Amino acid sequence: MANKKVKVGIVGLGRQGYQHAENLALRVPNCELIAVCSVVEKEVKEVQEKWGIPYGYADYDEMLENRELEAIFIASPSGFHYEQIEKALEAGFHVFSEKPLGLYLEEAEKVEKAVSRHPDKVFMLGFMRRYDRSYADAKRMIDSGEIGEPVLIRCYGLDPAGKLDSFLKFARDNYSGGLFLDMAIHDLDLARWYLQAEPEEVWAIGGSYARPEFAELGDAETGAAMVRFSGNRIGIFVAGRNCAHGYHIETEIIGTNGTLRIGTVPERNQVMIFNETGAVKKCTGGFLERFEQSYLSEAEEFINCILENRKPSVNVRDGVESTRLGYACKKSFETGKLVRVKS
Amino acid sequence: MANKKVKVGIVGLGRQGYQHAENLALRVPNCELIAVCSVVEKEVKEVQEKWGIPYGYADYDEMLENRELEAIFIASPSGFHYEQIEKALEAGFHVFSEKPLGLYLEEAEKVEKAVSRHPDKVFMLGFMRRYDRSYADAKRMIDSGEIGEPVLIRCYGLDPAGKLDSFLKFARDNYSGGLFLDMAIHDLDLARWYLQAEPEEVWAIGGSYARPEFAELGDAETGAAMVRFSGNRIGIFVAGRNCAHGYHIETEIIGTNGTLRIGTVPERNQVMIFNETGAVKKCTGGFLERFEQSYLSEAEEFINCILENRKPSVNVRDGVESTRLGYACKKSFETGKLVRVKS
Amino acid sequence: MANKKVKVGIVGLGRQGYQHAENLALRVPNCELIAVCSVVEKEVKEVQEKWGIPYGYADYDEMLENRELEAIFIASPSGFHYEQIEKALEAGFHVFSEKPLGLYLEEAEKVEKAVSRHPDKVFMLGFMRRYDRSYADAKRMIDSGEIGEPVLIRCYGLDPAGKLDSFLKFARDNYSGGLFLDMAIHDLDLARWYLQAEPEEVWAIGGSYARPEFAELGDAETGAAMVRFSGNRIGIFVAGRNCAHGYHIETEIIGTNGTLRIGTVPERNQVMIFNETGAVKKCTGGFLERFEQSYLSEAEEFINCILENRKPSVNVRDGVESTRLGYACKKSFETGKLVRVKS
Amino acid sequence: MANKKVKVGIVGLGRQGYQHAENLALRVPNCELIAVCSVVEKEVKEVQEKWGIPYGYADYDEMLENRELEAIFIASPSGFHYEQIEKALEAGFHVFSEKPLGLYLEEAEKVEKAVSRHPDKVFMLGFMRRYDRSYADAKRMIDSGEIGEPVLIRCYGLDPAGKLDSFLKFARDNYSGGLFLDMAIHDLDLARWYLQAEPEEVWAIGGSYARPEFAELGDAETGAAMVRFSGNRIGIFVAGRNCAHGYHIETEIIGTNGTLRIGTVPERNQVMIFNETGAVKKCTGGFLERFEQSYLSEAEEFINCILENRKPSVNVRDGVESTRLGYACKKSFETGKLVRVKS
Repeated sequence: MANKKVKVGIVGLGRQGYQHAENLALRVPNCELIAVCSVVEKEVKEVQEKWGIPYGYADYDEMLENRELEAIFIASPSGFHYEQIEKALEAGFHVFSEKPLGLYLEEAEKVEKAVSRHPDKVFMLGFMRRYDRSYADAKRMIDSGEIGEPVLIRCYGLDPAGKLDSFLKFARDNYSGGLFLDMAIHDLDLARWYLQAEPEEVWAIGGSYARPEFAELGDAETGAAMVRFSGNRIGIFVAGRNCAHGYHIETEIIGTNGTLRIGTVPERNQVMIFNETGAVKKCTGGFLERFEQSYLSEAEEFINCILENRKPSVNVRDGVESTRLGYACKKSFETGKLVRVKS
Repeated sequence: MANKKVKVGIVGLGRQGYQHAENLALRVPNCELIAVCSVVEKEVKEVQEKWGIPYGYADYDEMLENRELEAIFIASPSGFHYEQIEKALEAGFHVFSEKPLGLYLEEAEKVEKAVSRHPDKVFMLGFMRRYDRSYADAKRMIDSGEIGEPVLIRCYGLDPAGKLDSFLKFARDNYSGGLFLDMAIHDLDLARWYLQAEPEEVWAIGGSYARPEFAELGDAETGAAMVRFSGNRIGIFVAGRNCAHGYHIETEIIGTNGTLRIGTVPERNQVMIFNETGAVKKCTGGFLERFEQSYLSEAEEFINCILENRKPSVNVRDGVESTRLGYACKKSFETGKLVRVKS
Repeated sequence: MANKKVKVGIVGLGRQGYQHAENLALRVPNCELIAVCSVVEKEVKEVQEKWGIPYGYADYDEMLENRELEAIFIASPSGFHYEQIEKALEAGFHVFSEKPLGLYLEEAEKVEKAVSRHPDKVFMLGFMRRYDRSYADAKRMIDSGEIGEPVLIRCYGLDPAGKLDSFLKFARDNYSGGLFLDMAIHDLDLARWYLQAEPEEVWAIGGSYARPEFAELGDAETGAAMVRFSGNRIGIFVAGRNCAHGYHIETEIIGTNGTLRIGTVPERNQVMIFNETGAVKKCTGGFLERFEQSYLSEAEEFINCILENRKPSVNVRDGVESTRLGYACKKSFETGKLVRVKS
Repeated sequence: MANKKVKVGIVGLGRQGYQHAENLALRVPNCELIAVCSVVEKEVKEVQEKWGIPYGYADYDEMLENRELEAIFIASPSGFHYEQIEKALEAGFHVFSEKPLGLYLEEAEKVEKAVSRHPDKVFMLGFMRRYDRSYADAKRMIDSGEIGEPVLIRCYGLDPAGKLDSFLKFARDNYSGGLFLDMAIHDLDLARWYLQAEPEEVWAIGGSYARPEFAELGDAETGAAMVRFSGNRIGIFVAGRNCAHGYHIETEIIGTNGTLRIGTVPERNQVMIFNETGAVKKCTGGFLERFEQSYLSEAEEFINCILENRKPSVNVRDGVESTRLGYACKKSFETGKLVRVKS
């Protein structure tokens, strides 16, 4: 049993994909990364050599024909997710996919059906925050009643201003779903997870303040959505792409007997510097830095689910419902109206 | 000049009124509290004896006939404010009034007219937070451009759970305006002050979670309002009456180049205790504790405005517009709809 | 009773003296500042006019002949303290003196004798930190057993680098006692107060790192003293004059069941700014800013002691023993040896 | 190159040894744990089965005969270190050893000689804190001059009160070196590393406050050492075994232009809970939790040094000098005298 290792192939070797690949190749116990796939040939070669990966592919379908593989890890651009998930499941593999399930709600729903056709396969979605130790600790505290009944959640998801230009360049040529689907989706998932409630109505607003380009794209530089959940529970979501101090992910859950906050100061580490500026905590620069541990832990959980023949707590329905709520936010932002979330 | 002291009379000697009276009697330079008025005879006597106040009244109109007085300080129950302000102005006095201007928007608008009929008199409204050093410092930083253009404000106004019962008892017999008018009004003022923008549309939600009595009163235990301000600026307001850790007043202003937070942890003082619970900061218990310095500073500013023949930065219009927005929040909460704010 | 006011005269109108005078003239209830004394004639006139003080003196002895006075407040340069205290007591006045009792231990001991000759007079020493709310709260917590038995105290007293040059200029012409007597004396008092133990042995070290001028003066830029108190309790004292981030006063008391920290981050107020530097708390710039409330509270306590015919908790012995320990630190620093503290 | 893996054997499978073994078996890239050794037969079997380790030994010398091995990892009880290090080096292996080098200074010096006889072998000592990201970041900031010249270091090393009983039981039968050698040694190393200075003189004090058993053992429950380093730099070390809030490791470096603090609040994670107690950060419970990342990183560094044919920044001299200083602290504590550190 100790020697049983799950043989994995990964598609997508961009920034996030590379990190996943490195984890799978070097750090996830009981896992063997034996295949990598990317349309960028150079990336494939580099990774194969660096970590001694035997199989390299430019073509995803070809990788799926490799019968040594047991599981597929999908970290390709979002537009490819739903098809690649379906294909991998049909080909008999366990599947981990980065969020989102698809660019459109219909795609997400198709994935849901595909997953339901393969109940014997492990399917896991990359809502890695649930595997962050702080977030997981908060969940345990809520479940054990430490703050009473959770009634309000506030989530901030702010990307660093330093990446604003590269995002604008990307967004001009690619459909990302816009601020609420692209950035807030992790928070929408957290809200459902922590509140154990479903969204019923949403109003979303926002604007382009420093950079008019966002308005031209029909998107927002910074936006906010307020959601009424079942039982009149309250969700407040702020998403942005122009955060001066770095990557700011913060979550607060107010309960009838107490409140939890996660990440109030997005501090880089435990160092504080005191100088003529004052007392300063440097802040995290990006998601790979902030969620390094969760990226590893979610991959471990995926592999363990396969080995132990069980399902992860993040399921395909979580992906569908977050997408549905994300699209409701988007519609509200675009129309300026209150939008009912139909589930 | 040094010896010139403004002679003041105060009406209302409840918890807040007593604090104001003590400040006026003992701590505000260039001020002489020479008259106190309350329907509770015992309160009047006690205060007169304690601080040597020569005049005591049970009747407000009678106090206004005292021609030694130059200024009236109004700290009576909210329902009396608008009439008492009008009368004092008509009688030729400078007036300081606790918020609100009146219980209804119409009352606030009447006060506005009365004030405009007396341009030579100082009128000041008790939005004391503007005089808190932290809030004032934040204002200076914003005005000097330290965070760029402010685009989002988030305000928390949470009353301690320990006072929930006494509030419910009070609210059964008195109209307070409900959560948004009673609690959030300071925050609505802060939002206009910091954003320098006017509200255009609001959606407010909330519920009764621990205590169904709030629903029976048509009010909310905890509520949230999201406001679209001019220029698509964003306002997020959370108000509540069931805060486990005490009195939590927190404000955040996100700008295009930086963010300010005031009061993230509502710490009582500079002591941290480390014990088996962890590292603990005790929290403030109520508004008199949190805003002790601002109550004194606003009274000093009122007296100085009289002596220096100038007007305070908080004017009657600020009171009217906050009330207008408060009523829009209330209407939205009651109807469940998006509400336009007509100014 | 309410109208009874203590009539006070103050000597010394420098930075600290001016602050005391302003408090006594405007903010301390039941106090009337009727006389001011300074060798700088201009200071006297300015203050008399500003706050309407009837009597002004250039000569201290002359002020003591004013029989309207009941109490003398001493805020003159340290070298004058012991004589002025003695004279005021002999002339029949209550006396408040800024620290130190005198520049030399012998002077402090003389004051102690003078005080003991006038048991009917209130004598109070300006160890204002004891009246700071955070420090007072810590004392209450210790006394009520919240941290068990206190076994170690660590005190930081660091002056801002910005005032280094003006200090060096001053120190060239004036004997201040050096770093441990001048800066650490408040901390030495706090240690005895919190630990309820007396010092037995000390070792003090330090150096001149950025500025060799300190060595030339026989003083240290930054120094540390470790003290063994009775019962093997431990005292750690760091004093310095080159603190980059401002005025840093921090105290920690470790007990057998918990630990207290006061002022870990010497934050100016409740504002935190997040910008490209990180998450920043600005720091306090000096003692008048940090201890504004305690300067007022100690003066109130002095006046109340007179009116209520009782003694303050800070007594002359506290001043003598702190001075004794300060001189032991100084001797240890100068000789490099362990020094026994003889009490 | 990618496939080259260093084959490692480990001795000692206690709490720390098990953690090292798990890292080596599962998480350190380019490493293959092929042998485990412990006198506790059950531990060996369990670990072999769990991670599929081919070789198991009860006898250390036997393990050294396994010529497949390239490196030995020593995590046995401290008393065995120096002999096991020597033997492994003589047998031609690279060696990683947990601290200390030996229980006595003479043992440490013997190890130093052994290491110098094998300049081609990698020898690394487990001063894992240097590999903690916060500590490493602080080092980078100091080296780049961000705080000017470092002049004072303050280090806290406090073990949780919850482990006090088990320590007392252990200490009755085992020589651990006492508080300063056992607990403070990591801090003594950090001081030399950050200050780039050598200790010259030390005074150490301490006592048994809650538990007289420490005095009976000739040890201290809580102790403090003040060290004068070359250039009059100052070191302050507090070590203890009775920390109510958990495992508290804190380090501060004061420089001529700024100050760094690491771990001021030993927070467990990024969650803050607000409840009737106040605003609470839970604290870390022990060294494996606090330094999880450093235990992994130091092992990675050891393996990389072997593969890349270079030496780690922690060398045997660091171990010898820390031990020398630790013994000087011990002697000072035992004699009550100032002790010169002879190097």
